[in-house]
Amino acid sequence: MITPDAPALPLRPELADEVPYGAPQLDVPVRLNVNENPYAPSDAVVATISRYVADAARELNRYPDRDFSALRADLADYLAVESGVRLDPAQVWAANGSNEVMLHLLQAFGGPGRTALSFAPTYSMYPEYARDTHTRWVTGRRAEDFTLDPAHAVATIEAERPSVILLASPNNPTGTALPPSTVEAVLEAAARIPAVVVVDEAYAEFRREGVPSALELLDAHPHLAVTRTMSKAFAAAGLRLGYLAASAALVDALRVVRLPYHLSAVTQAAARAALAHRDELLGQVADLRAERDDLVTWLRDQQVGGRPLQVADTDANFVLFGTFADRHAVWQGLLDRGVLIRETGPDGWLRVSVGTPAETRSFQDALTDVVAETAQKEQ
Amino acid sequence: MITPDAPALPLRPELADEVPYGAPQLDVPVRLNVNENPYAPSDAVVATISRYVADAARELNRYPDRDFSALRADLADYLAVESGVRLDPAQVWAANGSNEVMLHLLQAFGGPGRTALSFAPTYSMYPEYARDTHTRWVTGRRAEDFTLDPAHAVATIEAERPSVILLASPNNPTGTALPPSTVEAVLEAAARIPAVVVVDEAYAEFRREGVPSALELLDAHPHLAVTRTMSKAFAAAGLRLGYLAASAALVDALRVVRLPYHLSAVTQAAARAALAHRDELLGQVADLRAERDDLVTWLRDQQVGGRPLQVADTDANFVLFGTFADRHAVWQGLLDRGVLIRETGPDGWLRVSVGTPAETRSFQDALTDVVAETAQKEQ
Repeated sequence: MITPDAPALPLRPELADEVPYGAPQLDVPVRLNVNENPYAPSDAVVATISRYVADAARELNRYPDRDFSALRADLADYLAVESGVRLDPAQVWAANGSNEVMLHLLQAFGGPGRTALSFAPTYSMYPEYARDTHTRWVTGRRAEDFTLDPAHAVATIEAERPSVILLASPNNPTGTALPPSTVEAVLEAAARIPAVVVVDEAYAEFRREGVPSALELLDAHPHLAVTRTMSKAFAAAGLRLGYLAASAALVDALRVVRLPYHLSAVTQAAARAALAHRDELLGQVADLRAERDDLVTWLRDQQVGGRPLQVADTDANFVLFGTFADRHAVWQGLLDRGVLIRETGPDGWLRVSVGTPAETRSFQDALTDVVAETAQKEQ
Repeated sequence: MITPDAPALPLRPELADEVPYGAPQLDVPVRLNVNENPYAPSDAVVATISRYVADAARELNRYPDRDFSALRADLADYLAVESGVRLDPAQVWAANGSNEVMLHLLQAFGGPGRTALSFAPTYSMYPEYARDTHTRWVTGRRAEDFTLDPAHAVATIEAERPSVILLASPNNPTGTALPPSTVEAVLEAAARIPAVVVVDEAYAEFRREGVPSALELLDAHPHLAVTRTMSKAFAAAGLRLGYLAASAALVDALRVVRLPYHLSAVTQAAARAALAHRDELLGQVADLRAERDDLVTWLRDQQVGGRPLQVADTDANFVLFGTFADRHAVWQGLLDRGVLIRETGPDGWLRVSVGTPAETRSFQDALTDVVAETAQKEQ
C-alpha cells in the first residue's frame, strides 16, 4: 500500500487502497493453507530437473523457444494419458502459473467494455484478473450445497452477456466438480453471446472415480478452454507452470497477447523434467485422493455445538468444512497449535488442504482440541 | 491470427489483425539479430545454476517466496558494484523479462484514459505494452542523430500529459545513451504532470567509459524507475529475468498489480546462480564493448555507392548502420550467407548485434560481399 506521505505517483485510482494478493506465508510446522501437494519431489525428480535445467543453461545466452513446442507436445501427451483426450500440441497453451493463463484469456477476450462472469463462492483471484484487465466482474450464485443450477447459470449469462465465463471445477474453495451437463448448458448459452467458457481444472487430477474432465467437451466446443496447472498434481507449485487446452483458434488468439518469450528456457526444461516423472507423481495423487476421502469421513463424524460438522463434497485436494460461529477463532486456535489452514469461503466455513497422513493427524488433533476448548468456553 | 473460417470467438476487435510479436527464430550459423550475448554460460556457471535449481527443486511442491527477497538483495548488491549506487532491496523489483516489468508499470500507472509517451525511433515492443494495457500510445521524435532534444521532450510532455514516459538509454535500435541532463529535464516536466519516468537500461552494462547510469538519479526522483535485464550482460536471455530500481513507494505499487507468485522458485534460483558469477560475466561484457567499438570503426570505413556508411554512436551491444536504398536486399543477402541480422529502425538502416570475434568476421565478410554484389548490379 502507498503510504500517505509517499511522493506523487500517478497510481490508478482503483488500485489506491488495494493490498497485494496472497495468503500469509508463515513458517509453521503444518502448512495446509494453500492446497500445496505435501510431497516434496523425490531425489529422482530433483535429479532430472537439475539435469534438464543444466542442458538448457548451456544455451541460456539465447532466447527461449517462443512457442515452447516441445513442452506443448509433452503436455498434450500427458493429458491424453490422464483423461483419454488426445489433443494436438497446437491446442495447448502454457504460462507462468494458471493465473498468467487467465490473464491471457482476459486480455484476448475480456477488457474494457466487457464482462467476466463466475458463480460464487469461487476462486478469490478471479476478480483480480478482471480488475487487472479492466473487465467488469459479475457473479451469479451457487446453490446451498455449492452446486451450480444450469437454469440459473443460463439466465445469468443471458442477463449479463459476458464475453468470458469462468467455471472452477473442482471449485475452489468448495471442492465441487460440475457435471458435464451443467458445463454443456453453459457452453450452449455462451455460444449465443458469444462468450469464451473457461473451465478451471486446477485440481482435476484429484477428482473422484467416474467424474469426467471438461477436456472431453473440447472437440465439440471451440469456445471452451480447460485450464490446468502443474502446481498441485505435479507437486510443483514452485515451478509456476499453468496451461490450458482449447481449440487451435482460441490458442492463436492468446499468442497475440502474450509477451514474447514469456516462458523461460529454465521453466520449459523443469516442466518437461517433471512431466517425465508423471507416473510417480500421479501415484502420489492417488494416495492424496484416498487421504482426502478419509478426512471427509472423519470430519463428518465430528460434532460442534451438538451438531455434526458440515463438509462439502470434494473432488479436490482440500476440504471445506463448517460452520463455526467464530471461524477466525478456530483458525487462530489451529495456528496456535502449529497448523495453518485457510480462512476462506462463505461465512463460518474453513478450508484445509490434504497433507501427509502425519499432517492430517496433526490437524485432526488440533481441531479436536480447539473444538473442545470452544465448547468449554461457551458453557 | 484467426483464420476466416474460425468459430465465433469474442476476440477484442483491436487484436483481430495482429500477429504475435517476435523476430524470426531461424537456425542459421551466425545469429546477430536479437542482441543476445554470444557467449554461452561457462561450465562453472552451468554447474552453479544446476546446483541452485536442484536445491530449489527439493521444495518445489511449495509456492515460491512471493516477494523473492533473497533475489532482490542480490540484485541490489549487483547494482551497487556495477554502478556505485547502493539501494535497499525494497527498491528493487523483478519479473519474467523486462517486458513483464514494463507491463506491471503500465498496469499500475497507465491504463484506459491514460497516455504513455516515448520518442521514436525506439524499442518496437513499447506500443505493444501500451496496447496490452489499453494505454494511449504517443511518440515524440528523436533528432537526426538519434539524440533527444530536451526542449522537444519537455514540450511534448506538456502537450500530451502522459502518465508514463519511456526512455530507452541506451536506445534500441539506435544504441544512443541519454545524458543525465536530458533525463533530468524529462523528470522535472514529468513531476508537474505527474508522470512516472521509466529509463530502460536493458543495455546499460555496455555503455562506454564515463557514461553514467540513470540509477544515480534515483535518490532525488521518486517517480523514476530504471529497468534492467539479465538477458544481455548476464548472457541469460533464456532465463527471462528483468528487474527495475525505483523508490520503495513506486515498487509497492507494482506489488499490487503483479500476479501472486509471478517469479518461480526455479527462476529465482537460476538468477541468483548467475549473479554469483557476476565477475566472470561482466568480464565478457568488457570484451564485447571492445569488439563493438572495433566494429563501429570498421563499419565507418566501409563505402556504399561511393559514400561512407553511416553508423550511429552506440553504448549497447549492437550497431545501427546504413543507409541502404534497399535494406531488405542487404538483409536477405546476409542471410543467404548464413548471417542473420535485424531489419529494424528507420528506413534504410539495419541493426547488427555484437557477436564473438569469429561471428563479427563472418558478418564483415558477408557484408563486404553483399555490398560489392549490389554495386555490380547497379552498374
